[in-house]
Amino acid sequence: MSIMVRPIITLTTDFGLRDSYVAEMKGVILGICPDARIVDVSHEIEKFNIRMGAFILACAAPSFPKGTIHVAVVDPGVGTKRKPILIQTKQAYFIGPDNGILTLAAEKQGIEHVYEITKTKLIRTEVSSTFHGRDIFAPTAAHLTNGIAPSMYGPEIRDFVEPSFTSIIRNKDRLIGEVLYVDCFGNIITNFGGKELKKIDASDEIAVKLGKVKLKLRITRAYGDAKERQILAIIGSHGFLEISVNQGDASEYFKARATDTIMVSHPRN
Amino acid sequence: MSIMVRPIITLTTDFGLRDSYVAEMKGVILGICPDARIVDVSHEIEKFNIRMGAFILACAAPSFPKGTIHVAVVDPGVGTKRKPILIQTKQAYFIGPDNGILTLAAEKQGIEHVYEITKTKLIRTEVSSTFHGRDIFAPTAAHLTNGIAPSMYGPEIRDFVEPSFTSIIRNKDRLIGEVLYVDCFGNIITNFGGKELKKIDASDEIAVKLGKVKLKLRITRAYGDAKERQILAIIGSHGFLEISVNQGDASEYFKARATDTIMVSHPRN
Amino acid sequence: MSIMVRPIITLTTDFGLRDSYVAEMKGVILGICPDARIVDVSHEIEKFNIRMGAFILACAAPSFPKGTIHVAVVDPGVGTKRKPILIQTKQAYFIGPDNGILTLAAEKQGIEHVYEITKTKLIRTEVSSTFHGRDIFAPTAAHLTNGIAPSMYGPEIRDFVEPSFTSIIRNKDRLIGEVLYVDCFGNIITNFGGKELKKIDASDEIAVKLGKVKLKLRITRAYGDAKERQILAIIGSHGFLEISVNQGDASEYFKARATDTIMVSHPRN
Repeated sequence: MSIMVRPIITLTTDFGLRDSYVAEMKGVILGICPDARIVDVSHEIEKFNIRMGAFILACAAPSFPKGTIHVAVVDPGVGTKRKPILIQTKQAYFIGPDNGILTLAAEKQGIEHVYEITKTKLIRTEVSSTFHGRDIFAPTAAHLTNGIAPSMYGPEIRDFVEPSFTSIIRNKDRLIGEVLYVDCFGNIITNFGGKELKKIDASDEIAVKLGKVKLKLRITRAYGDAKERQILAIIGSHGFLEISVNQGDASEYFKARATDTIMVSHPRN
Repeated sequence: MSIMVRPIITLTTDFGLRDSYVAEMKGVILGICPDARIVDVSHEIEKFNIRMGAFILACAAPSFPKGTIHVAVVDPGVGTKRKPILIQTKQAYFIGPDNGILTLAAEKQGIEHVYEITKTKLIRTEVSSTFHGRDIFAPTAAHLTNGIAPSMYGPEIRDFVEPSFTSIIRNKDRLIGEVLYVDCFGNIITNFGGKELKKIDASDEIAVKLGKVKLKLRITRAYGDAKERQILAIIGSHGFLEISVNQGDASEYFKARATDTIMVSHPRN
Repeated sequence: MSIMVRPIITLTTDFGLRDSYVAEMKGVILGICPDARIVDVSHEIEKFNIRMGAFILACAAPSFPKGTIHVAVVDPGVGTKRKPILIQTKQAYFIGPDNGILTLAAEKQGIEHVYEITKTKLIRTEVSSTFHGRDIFAPTAAHLTNGIAPSMYGPEIRDFVEPSFTSIIRNKDRLIGEVLYVDCFGNIITNFGGKELKKIDASDEIAVKLGKVKLKLRITRAYGDAKERQILAIIGSHGFLEISVNQGDASEYFKARATDTIMVSHPRN
């Protein structure tokens, strides 16, 4: 490394890219910390869809180096009594509203401290009640990047909101889970991962029930291991079971959406 | 600040993000000024919608630090006799076509000098007549970032194009204004702001006529102060009166679009 | 230039901007090379459309300075036996799958060496078979930026995949070419360029047949030289003949799409 660099600041919002909102956050950050390194995670989170924001952030966060500051703003409660918070984990910092958007990503890294951001006068002269992304979260991230300690922004708190993801349920020989996310390729990403998947080998055949469709699917190693347009099951790049179509859109075939129930059974269950 | 940093260059265009045009501008900038800091404001301005570009730029510019260089290119007249210009204000620089896109933002900051960019040979060997974003505006910004003074790019001029925004008209007890912009949340941003709004308090009730809809609306402090899906009026993050729906889309309800007329009356008018 | 800067890394993918994939690539790059300068070319390449990715990259690459590292990932064959490759040209480096996406841009610059990327353990501990953008191409680019030589990533190879673009055919007094791309303005970019166009002057009239439409068109110098909504022919910013509508959408009028055949004849052919 040839020069001293600041921690990265990432941004995840439902602000879209057409309006000026994302640029305003960046302008504020660069005004406070001129050599900040800002990376967009996504600004195309569905409006007010906290769960989707939480999922996307949790997918992105593990790829960033230690010390990264993740700002996430999907914030229907902006200006009401929901708290602005700063979470310190073993790996990173998470800044945003206390509505669950930060928690999924933060818990995977081991939460060490959670602070309510109350000292907003320290952060910025004027704070609107409609745009905390610009007026609280962005400046907090920038000051943190400048070296102002997490405990300076407000008191430590113990309670914070958990996002609403379902656990996997076993029903006889079937596992019942849910669709976490449908990505822009139409891949159906499920919450089967980690311990459930240890028992599944690539090349196993599993029985899947999703919506009105029941199918037996072979687990492939690569999308291209199936024929073009063929439905397949695969362990995706975040370690979750995905239902996909090689060079096609699985979500269209299954009419699948996030939060849909999916049932999986396989020989060794 | 640990290192010397260049002024920020922001980009506002109607080029979209699918094609290579924005990247070409960035490549040219970084070829001239390798440590330029480039921030996208928006590339999703509606094609040829100068007014929308002017509005988005005027929203973004106040959040950027002193010395920022704003490049804006919505340019149906590229290659014709419309002038490429550089505006110097008390706060920043604005570079783009002389068609009104720069003026709204620049005038708010106090215009000091306006230059026509004529010395294009100084800027770049070859200049196309179809892509001044890449061939004139980007290199001008990069050279300016490198320290070449504004007066070096061409002669100072006195006349420049003003964007077409409507003033507020008083008609008895009613104020008649217009819709400036509908943001991606469906918030209807009007041109009631500053002096008109001083008389309006949060919690006041106002009567609004917009399209075929007449309504009495309470002015709330935060979107979440209204019930879910309830219509509300609010002073938005840029100081303008907005008509919004808490966690919904007000523009859909009112079928509102930029330039629509809106009438507002309230008790103390 | 006030500080030592790393070569630029550009990214061209079909990953879209909604999901976390692009951010994961950037996180990996910045983890390996903290002061990397990353520029997005486009993430809106149509899913699996290698030809479109190749065209967009070839449009963008000439605007970037010498030494730039272009990463392009449109990769339906990810995890199968298609090779990850690194191409060194006289001007730049190109990293991506060996499916033709890199070749059009690289050949224009003069290819010097092509390497198969095999030493993936050198690059990253774990490599998925579904996301080489994050696990092979991004880290290769970052290590290259850090100064690890191209020959370190694997053996030099001689064969690589060429993209499928059509050559221009002469049929009596007509030239038969194809639509390379329709940009987001609806400009129809054809493969008539370079040697074919030397004979065409601005202000010439050409006869065009595209889809079911036959038209005589004047070649204008600027879009705005035609009347509003008028169809025109123009030499675009990448040196190709374009069929356009001043402030309108030519592709809608002609129902034109990439790979469509276009016939052009003009007096001096």
